[in-house]
Amino acid sequence: MLERVEARLAGFLAGERREWAELNPDAVELVDCVAHMVASGGKRLRPSFCIAAYLAAGGDPASDQAVDAAAALELLHTSALLHDDVFDASELRRNEPTAHMRHATLHTDRGWHGEARRYGESVAILAGNLGLVYAQRLMDGSSPHARRVWGELCTELMVGQFLDVRAAARFQPDVPLARWIALFKSGRYTVSRPLALGAALAGGSPRLLAAFEEYGLAVGEAFQLRDDLLDAFGSAEVTGKPARLDFKQHKMTLLMSFALSDEPEVRALVGDDLPGTDPDELHALLIRTGIRDRVEAVIAERLKVADEAVSTALPPAWAAQLHAMAQAAVYREK
Amino acid sequence: MLERVEARLAGFLAGERREWAELNPDAVELVDCVAHMVASGGKRLRPSFCIAAYLAAGGDPASDQAVDAAAALELLHTSALLHDDVFDASELRRNEPTAHMRHATLHTDRGWHGEARRYGESVAILAGNLGLVYAQRLMDGSSPHARRVWGELCTELMVGQFLDVRAAARFQPDVPLARWIALFKSGRYTVSRPLALGAALAGGSPRLLAAFEEYGLAVGEAFQLRDDLLDAFGSAEVTGKPARLDFKQHKMTLLMSFALSDEPEVRALVGDDLPGTDPDELHALLIRTGIRDRVEAVIAERLKVADEAVSTALPPAWAAQLHAMAQAAVYREK
Repeated sequence: MLERVEARLAGFLAGERREWAELNPDAVELVDCVAHMVASGGKRLRPSFCIAAYLAAGGDPASDQAVDAAAALELLHTSALLHDDVFDASELRRNEPTAHMRHATLHTDRGWHGEARRYGESVAILAGNLGLVYAQRLMDGSSPHARRVWGELCTELMVGQFLDVRAAARFQPDVPLARWIALFKSGRYTVSRPLALGAALAGGSPRLLAAFEEYGLAVGEAFQLRDDLLDAFGSAEVTGKPARLDFKQHKMTLLMSFALSDEPEVRALVGDDLPGTDPDELHALLIRTGIRDRVEAVIAERLKVADEAVSTALPPAWAAQLHAMAQAAVYREK
Repeated sequence: MLERVEARLAGFLAGERREWAELNPDAVELVDCVAHMVASGGKRLRPSFCIAAYLAAGGDPASDQAVDAAAALELLHTSALLHDDVFDASELRRNEPTAHMRHATLHTDRGWHGEARRYGESVAILAGNLGLVYAQRLMDGSSPHARRVWGELCTELMVGQFLDVRAAARFQPDVPLARWIALFKSGRYTVSRPLALGAALAGGSPRLLAAFEEYGLAVGEAFQLRDDLLDAFGSAEVTGKPARLDFKQHKMTLLMSFALSDEPEVRALVGDDLPGTDPDELHALLIRTGIRDRVEAVIAERLKVADEAVSTALPPAWAAQLHAMAQAAVYREK
């Protein structure tokens, strides 16, 4: 089914490209901006969770509804990444210049009028909007229940991103808020809502939905913690993103939130000024004070919670499959 | 029915506000940003065209589907305005600071971290995204046919905005392209697609749909020409927007496109550098060369086409109603 998701994504975008090439060839640049991000090697986590839940809940593998919904999740994610890179002023994504950087460069190279930064960012925002609209169109054939789950998922994504941007600007160590944002922005969006969407399409039982919810929130939090650790300790060559971007963007990540509230030494170093803090010093301190290890322990504990949630609600083969998926999501290198 | 549209908009947003206030009070800022734009005195053109078409095509006035779809159109428009103001770096909308300006000021006043401009723009973009998601959710109860029309409308809006941003940056006098953009960005989006949506919900005949399409494209083009004239010759106090913003943003409007391709004197004044052109001189020249009058003649001619299209397809009372709506849209002062 995941192969059919890829074919659906490629086919849908190729169809749009063809239609716009006939109507107005300039428009193809925007479609291509979406297609480029879709084709740039995402992990397809959200489609995988959606399809797994659909099949585990007894959904018909021959049906196209779950394939379309999984493709919609990937397009929604594409949209979120295009926008996020603008909000974060990120220059690299998956080892390539980000969309807004590419289009700002095009603007300069072509000697066009106005501000190159604004042009690049406008194109990336509009490409994200187009991705969101495409995602929506792929959901048109879904059941009312699945579309309701989808609407909640999209709403939570936008609010979660806002809270993230707001917390980064405000920058106060606040563990409950950082957890809450991780829960909404990553936990629900990446794991539990895609599972709920798949289960809704298959008509899963309330007991199954509750188990997916518990599993999803636990894996989602662990996933976000891994994200923070990769940013802080990973290598840019492997992740495809600049190292320590969260530090540079003074993001109030779960990791920083733990560190600032639990370690007086970290608080003393950062003070009121994360942007002015030496990243190398901070990096060394997070290791020396054991924050890194403590976060690894939380990840392992969350995985255990996730395993228990599905082991009682699912047949052993599907529980094992979801265990493997959680492991892969949480112990990834990029 | 338009009163029920207002009640639906207010009720939906109040419900979201209440839910988020319980979940996370900070999130309310984003909902309020959408609600503020919705409540700031829009003309409700798109809901009006949608409801008119629905009733003219024999739709049941007691049904909520058309009310929801009309409310969705207004939320989509809210979303587009929030984004447009960022793309255009507009400082005023409806006589108030734009959303991105307000939130940039909040950022500065609160002494927050990072760049105030980026923060304000990120909040406005996310509020626009939330408006789009809300619009989508209001369409969930519509028929598959209506949802297909909606999906096309949203796609055309995003592509139209991209072509607009691109043409402003490229800035070459190109009448066919400027017409095409006006057609997609305003004509279809403001008039013919809302009409098609209303007619689809009522199950209108193909003959009626064709008449709405012809009327919509003609009124839409006239509407866009009026927009350009108001920008060039209107007063900021009446329109609520800074005067001659299109000049300052070197937008390749229909008006500028006509002027540059038809009048050697305008071409000589502007040369390759609209941003460097004196707005007062340009303004005087557009009047002296008769461009302004010529555009008024095109508007009158488009209105005639629109009237003819509906007068043969609709009962006289509805033809008169659509005539009055076209007049109001096209001979407006703001």
